[in-house]
Amino acid sequence: MLAEIITIGDEILIGQIIDSNSAWMAQQLNAAGIRVKQISSVSDDRDHIITALKEASQRADIILITGGLGPTKDDITKTTLAGYFGVGMKRDQETLDNVARIFAKYNRPLLEVNISQADVPENCEVLINKNGTAPGMWFQEDGKVYVSMPGVPFEMMYLMEELVIPKLKATFKLPKILHQTILTFGEGESFLAERIADIEDQLPPKIKLAYLPNLGQVRLRLSAYGDNEEQLKQQLKIQTQKITQRLGSVVAATEDIPLQKAILLLMAKNKQTLSLAESCTGGYLSHLFTSLPGASGVFLGAAVSYSYKMKERMLGVNADTLWETGAVSEQTVREMAEGALRNFSSDYAIAVTGIAGPDGGTEDKPVGTVWIAVARKDKMIANKYVFGSKRIQNIERTAITAMSDLLKLLREPK
Amino acid sequence: MLAEIITIGDEILIGQIIDSNSAWMAQQLNAAGIRVKQISSVSDDRDHIITALKEASQRADIILITGGLGPTKDDITKTTLAGYFGVGMKRDQETLDNVARIFAKYNRPLLEVNISQADVPENCEVLINKNGTAPGMWFQEDGKVYVSMPGVPFEMMYLMEELVIPKLKATFKLPKILHQTILTFGEGESFLAERIADIEDQLPPKIKLAYLPNLGQVRLRLSAYGDNEEQLKQQLKIQTQKITQRLGSVVAATEDIPLQKAILLLMAKNKQTLSLAESCTGGYLSHLFTSLPGASGVFLGAAVSYSYKMKERMLGVNADTLWETGAVSEQTVREMAEGALRNFSSDYAIAVTGIAGPDGGTEDKPVGTVWIAVARKDKMIANKYVFGSKRIQNIERTAITAMSDLLKLLREPK
Repeated sequence: MLAEIITIGDEILIGQIIDSNSAWMAQQLNAAGIRVKQISSVSDDRDHIITALKEASQRADIILITGGLGPTKDDITKTTLAGYFGVGMKRDQETLDNVARIFAKYNRPLLEVNISQADVPENCEVLINKNGTAPGMWFQEDGKVYVSMPGVPFEMMYLMEELVIPKLKATFKLPKILHQTILTFGEGESFLAERIADIEDQLPPKIKLAYLPNLGQVRLRLSAYGDNEEQLKQQLKIQTQKITQRLGSVVAATEDIPLQKAILLLMAKNKQTLSLAESCTGGYLSHLFTSLPGASGVFLGAAVSYSYKMKERMLGVNADTLWETGAVSEQTVREMAEGALRNFSSDYAIAVTGIAGPDGGTEDKPVGTVWIAVARKDKMIANKYVFGSKRIQNIERTAITAMSDLLKLLREPK
Repeated sequence: MLAEIITIGDEILIGQIIDSNSAWMAQQLNAAGIRVKQISSVSDDRDHIITALKEASQRADIILITGGLGPTKDDITKTTLAGYFGVGMKRDQETLDNVARIFAKYNRPLLEVNISQADVPENCEVLINKNGTAPGMWFQEDGKVYVSMPGVPFEMMYLMEELVIPKLKATFKLPKILHQTILTFGEGESFLAERIADIEDQLPPKIKLAYLPNLGQVRLRLSAYGDNEEQLKQQLKIQTQKITQRLGSVVAATEDIPLQKAILLLMAKNKQTLSLAESCTGGYLSHLFTSLPGASGVFLGAAVSYSYKMKERMLGVNADTLWETGAVSEQTVREMAEGALRNFSSDYAIAVTGIAGPDGGTEDKPVGTVWIAVARKDKMIANKYVFGSKRIQNIERTAITAMSDLLKLLREPK
């Protein structure tokens, strides 16, 4: 079963907002066994919307539309839909009651433009929106389903979860789609593809493999399509095992999580703690860990030591080391890691120091030069890397590389 | 001049990633005087891609395509484009050299699949991608321009900024669009709109005003459209002055910069230094400042003190304070700010401590409770806020509120 998503409105087209609604809707649809064929963002323009509806209905059986339902003049979705289906408008009493209820709740006067929110195309079944004044609308024409929803995320989410997905499940016989993600680190897409070429060639026809690369990590996603859920689960399990066994130590996780979460889960399981000494990453590594719920069980804290003095005071780096070898040197990064282990009493520590750029490089230490140390009481590994010339990318690459180095150390026996 | 953006690949269609590339590209295009008519996300399917290209070329003159350029089997954009244009493939030497250079730099063996990244449709002009192995491609057919770029954000951004936008400007006669942004903080969109309603009503016809709200900040963007650049500049200047005078102290900057940059610029001008004591924001505030080039002139460092011990050791917070008032209290946040000023010898300090969630709340300190202190030697201001129940949003709201509080203190006379 195929669906398409059409978002209406200029905010996305001028880059003012990022279309996070569609990603969320796509997840919900996939989980219900409905594949999304295309997502289109179109302008507040009647002809353009009608063309998009026609094109979508030629490819898919389910067309979900968001946006363009507010009370202001530029919101034209409803009359455009009536035109598309060749019907007139009707005033829906239940919607009017809902609008009146919401205005009474907030003690606001009910204006004519608000009353007109209860006007809907004659052929629609209204989906009452408990979180807002714009109604959802369900159309069934020529075996296709069209659903129109407001673009405000929590209103759309309410309608999708409570009304649209259940109604789609009741209307169509849906196949199952299951996904399994394998997170790898430290190797490129092409290296991985060559390592598992024969496994990929022999995948059962119902299973597809996709490579999703991103800065030092590649996610391998297996998707299984069919009717027999148990059989699909079994097949996914077998293929996941084959691939993880073949790829061995470059596999960080067999779920769809970022590298920092794989590290936190592993350290939490082993009751280990972590502290950081960050120079060039400037708090970004800490932020990656602390964005995750439950981080405080593992992550004790970090010294973001941007100046020489902060490296001395928070981490006990030797002033002579800094003046003789510089802030970006093996000796400094080692003393930073030692200082973090000692001062913060953590089981593990990461220290990073480098030249993020765009300025500050020298001939023997160009912009992008980074030293990373990962340490525990009995072992320390320090590596030098040379990344590019762009500041943000250097920060991100340093962070992902530091996490990769830590994961390797975490797996080494004591 | 109209453009369309087509993203290729299943990641967006299954909701695994949010399409932030398209929003960024739309911003760049708009700034260059090119309107985006439609954004479409389509699957890794040859026929589907060709249909999308045909439809887009009927509506727009510029078609920008991202994704599907990796070396693995699921990446089919290149051969599909060759099919669309009815041409064969060629091996591009410059691209091959670029691929070889990148593999040599990272000491990786060059595999056959990597070499095939240099194969491109015969009719394309290659745009060398210095940040990756997949080339950009520029096609000009029947007066339309098609550009294919990798979907990895920083590779796409490099190609857009360095090559695609300049080439589009050289190829088409684009109208002038000048933008002037006024960054405001601490007040909502409707409040601002009411304050400047009369100025907005009297704007010259060539000037448009847009409100771009985002978490405690609203950017007002004035856009001037026309041919006479000098006249547009002059008109923008007059309107900007009118609005900034009216809005007064809620204006943080009259350029398109984030709040952290407005703070850094002001502090650098006044030769002031800053240190941070972060608990619930977990390094995010430091990251916001250190993402900016030149941060080290102002930002000395931060203590990311996630545990009680770290608050005591790095910031000298009294153990009694922590045990008696808790980590999220006025007394603790004040001691954190004092500790940062004292231990890190900075002119100004921000301290934040709170319950980011989703767990850890109590009846009198629910999830979302945050204390923020901003301080200098002669003055400290501590405020309590209660945000929502979502972790990431709480971290972001705390950071933006802390920066707003700091900016207010920076403006207070000593």
